[in-house]
Amino acid sequence: MTILLYELVGADPSRPFSPHVWKIALALAHKGLPFETVPVPFTGVPKIEGGFSKTVPVIRDGGTLMKESFDIAVYLEETYPDRPSLFKGEGGKAAARFVERWSQAVVRPYLGGAALMDIYGRLAPADQAYFRPSRQARFGDRSLEEVSGEREAGLHAWRAGLEPLRDMLSYQPFIGGDGPLYADYIVAGFLQWMRVVSPFRFLDPADPVAAWFERCLDLHGGLMRKVPAAA
Amino acid sequence: MTILLYELVGADPSRPFSPHVWKIALALAHKGLPFETVPVPFTGVPKIEGGFSKTVPVIRDGGTLMKESFDIAVYLEETYPDRPSLFKGEGGKAAARFVERWSQAVVRPYLGGAALMDIYGRLAPADQAYFRPSRQARFGDRSLEEVSGEREAGLHAWRAGLEPLRDMLSYQPFIGGDGPLYADYIVAGFLQWMRVVSPFRFLDPADPVAAWFERCLDLHGGLMRKVPAAA
Repeated sequence: MTILLYELVGADPSRPFSPHVWKIALALAHKGLPFETVPVPFTGVPKIEGGFSKTVPVIRDGGTLMKESFDIAVYLEETYPDRPSLFKGEGGKAAARFVERWSQAVVRPYLGGAALMDIYGRLAPADQAYFRPSRQARFGDRSLEEVSGEREAGLHAWRAGLEPLRDMLSYQPFIGGDGPLYADYIVAGFLQWMRVVSPFRFLDPADPVAAWFERCLDLHGGLMRKVPAAA
Repeated sequence: MTILLYELVGADPSRPFSPHVWKIALALAHKGLPFETVPVPFTGVPKIEGGFSKTVPVIRDGGTLMKESFDIAVYLEETYPDRPSLFKGEGGKAAARFVERWSQAVVRPYLGGAALMDIYGRLAPADQAYFRPSRQARFGDRSLEEVSGEREAGLHAWRAGLEPLRDMLSYQPFIGGDGPLYADYIVAGFLQWMRVVSPFRFLDPADPVAAWFERCLDLHGGLMRKVPAAA
């Protein structure tokens, strides 16, 4: 049965941008599971499946509803054990949680601020009216314009924070080793988020991290490339 | 056959302190492999096994010599597959490399500077004569006293950099999940390094990272606790 993936969009339903949804789209593709996407704007999220979750992704797999990206990945791994593994073992599953928390602590915060106005500009009016106050509260009651205006100033430190990934890439092509695993999708989801919403060049093209992300863009029939980069 | 582990010591041969050697001591204990340690001072490292390596750890396992901690861990995993796994799968092995590079980029640099004078004070004179110029060159030709004098100033940022580990610990007790794997030993080795050489309180005792390290100190019959904390 085809799995439904509820994904976050702005005014254009063909450009899903939630990093956490991209993780799961990649995970579903990795497992070779057919899925259909259901585009949902910010203000539609609380209504998904009768109020099942405050956040996306949400998946419906037959009679099963799941939320929270990591929990969904574990569900897919356990429910479809004969499909290609997302973790390659219990050690990989446990370490993926570390990669997730690294991404949340190091990769996400700067990007979330830097792209505020890019995201805002892509939303329909009803979602803009939700997004502005909710995000201004999240960023200490500062305006979206002020926070996103700091992105040049913060870029160097953000790129420096990617050093563990960059350094690891001198040993192996993916966090998963020779090939990608869910740990790669965790980080790639954040970079795809930026690729879809912003024309700003977050990665130096000469950075090994950029080369790794290009490899990720090629995965699963170019799943992420099907959404053109923001111009 | 008992494995030999060459380990780094100062004037007191009963207080090995190299973080990379501690990783391997823990890995050997995890696998339940009997091993004997061979204490070596800094100036003795180039003479180990006829000049086999510029660094420790080095192990001799029968006719096999191995160097580089990660390579040794992989060797142990592959040579003793029926013993408890250090990685729990290929995904865990690959992600351990990410944890290693995170530790090298985020955990190690501050500690290496902060403990310079502690380490210096524990070395025999011949090793002090090697250590001072080699480390001053590594820290931009600044004196050991100057670099280690900055440890209070850098402490807050260092603790903040542990956030991915701290945050992960709200999900699971070890990087390895329910129990420790080599990825835990990578990070624990750095904290044991400090515990052995310095009375400085690097971790806030209320930090979940400190609680995790205490759990690590208990592992394998309290292997790390057998060396009393520096006073």
